[in-house]
Amino acid sequence: MQDLELKDIIKAHKRISSYIHKTPVLTSSLLNQKLGHEIFFKAECLQKVGAFKARGAMNTLLWLSEKKMFPSKVVAFSSGNHAQAVSWASSKLGLTSEIFMPEWVSSIKLQATKEYGAKVTLCRHRQEAEDKAYNAKEQGAYLLPPFDHDQVICGQGTACLEAFSQVDQPISAVFAPCGGGGLLSGTVIAAKGKSPEISVIGSEPLLANDAAQSLRQGKIFRWDKSPDTLADGAKTLSVTQRTLNYLNRLDDFHEISEQEIIYWTQWLCHFLKLHIEPTSALAMASAIKWLRTQNSQKSILVILSGGNMDPKTLQRVWSQDHLGGPPFLNLSL
Amino acid sequence: MQDLELKDIIKAHKRISSYIHKTPVLTSSLLNQKLGHEIFFKAECLQKVGAFKARGAMNTLLWLSEKKMFPSKVVAFSSGNHAQAVSWASSKLGLTSEIFMPEWVSSIKLQATKEYGAKVTLCRHRQEAEDKAYNAKEQGAYLLPPFDHDQVICGQGTACLEAFSQVDQPISAVFAPCGGGGLLSGTVIAAKGKSPEISVIGSEPLLANDAAQSLRQGKIFRWDKSPDTLADGAKTLSVTQRTLNYLNRLDDFHEISEQEIIYWTQWLCHFLKLHIEPTSALAMASAIKWLRTQNSQKSILVILSGGNMDPKTLQRVWSQDHLGGPPFLNLSL
Repeated sequence: MQDLELKDIIKAHKRISSYIHKTPVLTSSLLNQKLGHEIFFKAECLQKVGAFKARGAMNTLLWLSEKKMFPSKVVAFSSGNHAQAVSWASSKLGLTSEIFMPEWVSSIKLQATKEYGAKVTLCRHRQEAEDKAYNAKEQGAYLLPPFDHDQVICGQGTACLEAFSQVDQPISAVFAPCGGGGLLSGTVIAAKGKSPEISVIGSEPLLANDAAQSLRQGKIFRWDKSPDTLADGAKTLSVTQRTLNYLNRLDDFHEISEQEIIYWTQWLCHFLKLHIEPTSALAMASAIKWLRTQNSQKSILVILSGGNMDPKTLQRVWSQDHLGGPPFLNLSL
Repeated sequence: MQDLELKDIIKAHKRISSYIHKTPVLTSSLLNQKLGHEIFFKAECLQKVGAFKARGAMNTLLWLSEKKMFPSKVVAFSSGNHAQAVSWASSKLGLTSEIFMPEWVSSIKLQATKEYGAKVTLCRHRQEAEDKAYNAKEQGAYLLPPFDHDQVICGQGTACLEAFSQVDQPISAVFAPCGGGGLLSGTVIAAKGKSPEISVIGSEPLLANDAAQSLRQGKIFRWDKSPDTLADGAKTLSVTQRTLNYLNRLDDFHEISEQEIIYWTQWLCHFLKLHIEPTSALAMASAIKWLRTQNSQKSILVILSGGNMDPKTLQRVWSQDHLGGPPFLNLSL
């Protein structure tokens, strides 16, 4: 397995750029004024399907087409943004797709996945969804994995690459959340390829810290069942050898409490006026931890993963009020 | 009092364009697919201070400067987005400002108004805030009204004017919410000035339908106290003769229930991934009512007023779940 490089991300970006949104890079003057630093936010919640996942899915299918390996049918198992991304990318390219979802999936994600064009098969639990997807693969369908694939990683890395072209000043550090590690791996490759001087820092929920444990132990730690965190994009059971390989190049990795996740989801919505999912708040909380250790003014990039939430999640986010007092007082959270 | 025309809005836009954001016009392919129509959303929640109000405040101050009437101090009374807009615009132009707010104002709006630079004086109630602002005016300060001023109206009208330049196809109808009628008056002038064929449709909460009553009665109806609606941008006690004059040119005016406001706030957040205030949902609910009466495919413009909400409002919005079922089934609301 050869290591991916910046040029692979550049290739991916050329492949997908006519299909995806060049999402805006946003700033908040109030936030920057408070912090004394400059934060650029890559708003992937405004991406197709509402999440960066559209990039990896589309890149993989277009890469297959280039390799003359274009499948007649695509399958995936997912309860989240990857399901919608595979459904959307397959339909865009005229391919039939089938997504296997556990029956507890939120109705809004189920509905969106169907509306993008996929056939959805509900399964009793995640294991059955996975088994059925592998069965379909044996029968000739292409199984598009959520992160353990070079072209998925390259696709996700295009968010960081694109952001660099949208910001007209040097970036000291880049922050991205970690689920299975696809976005974070792509981000490491893009940022370090641009300059090894750029720090890249990952983050995941403390309650779902399998990547942190894997990094500490030097081998993959895997949950038996999905950990319980509000940041549902980071609920994956484990990273893989492929993504751990890139995560080892990170400059730091932060574990974020549920309170911090809620705190920063609220403040990001308020400052940026974007509908931001809790997984995106991981990167912001991590950025604040890093900025506290800096002695000079920095310009940094925070990748906002997406904006797909069901009302239950939103009720949990807004059941507290962190906007009542001045921000950043609770930074010791 | 001479009627304002499109050229006045064009002048306002030239005045303010280097100070404000050219906010994006967004679409949702899923939404358009479902509706069979094309809706363009002018995202004023991404405007400076998170609302279209920045346009009117900035235009008025720059116009005063042109007229050699630049004040040394600006005052306003407001519990909402206008307070932040006056604070921001005054600071940008190096002016001292003081905002008189009722003491029940939400801490987040109080805080933001201070952070943009204004001195904030809390008053026991709205009447005291108004009295104090008039006192300050008598002592030489410039009292910047929230809507009853030609240059405020011209400033707000630039949102519609700007959107026309961002959409490359003919627009059949424009939808905007009504508080005191500043945004809606400016929108009427801009749209009808562009073409009398463009329909302009206003909307306000059924629970705060003073403009609808004024339009029906042909004279201004005024609430004794602020009506109770989730759409706090539309809580004004009455329109004025100046704005009613323009509202009389509307093609239609819709009164929206609180259920419809919550329903469309949820769906707009979901489809657009923007942090949208309930007042913005008025225009969307109104657009849906109008689209139901159309026999052919339409392209329309919906002006999203802003994105400033406190957690209490967000708790009320997300305490229900309208995203659970397929959208538009509840359109009979």
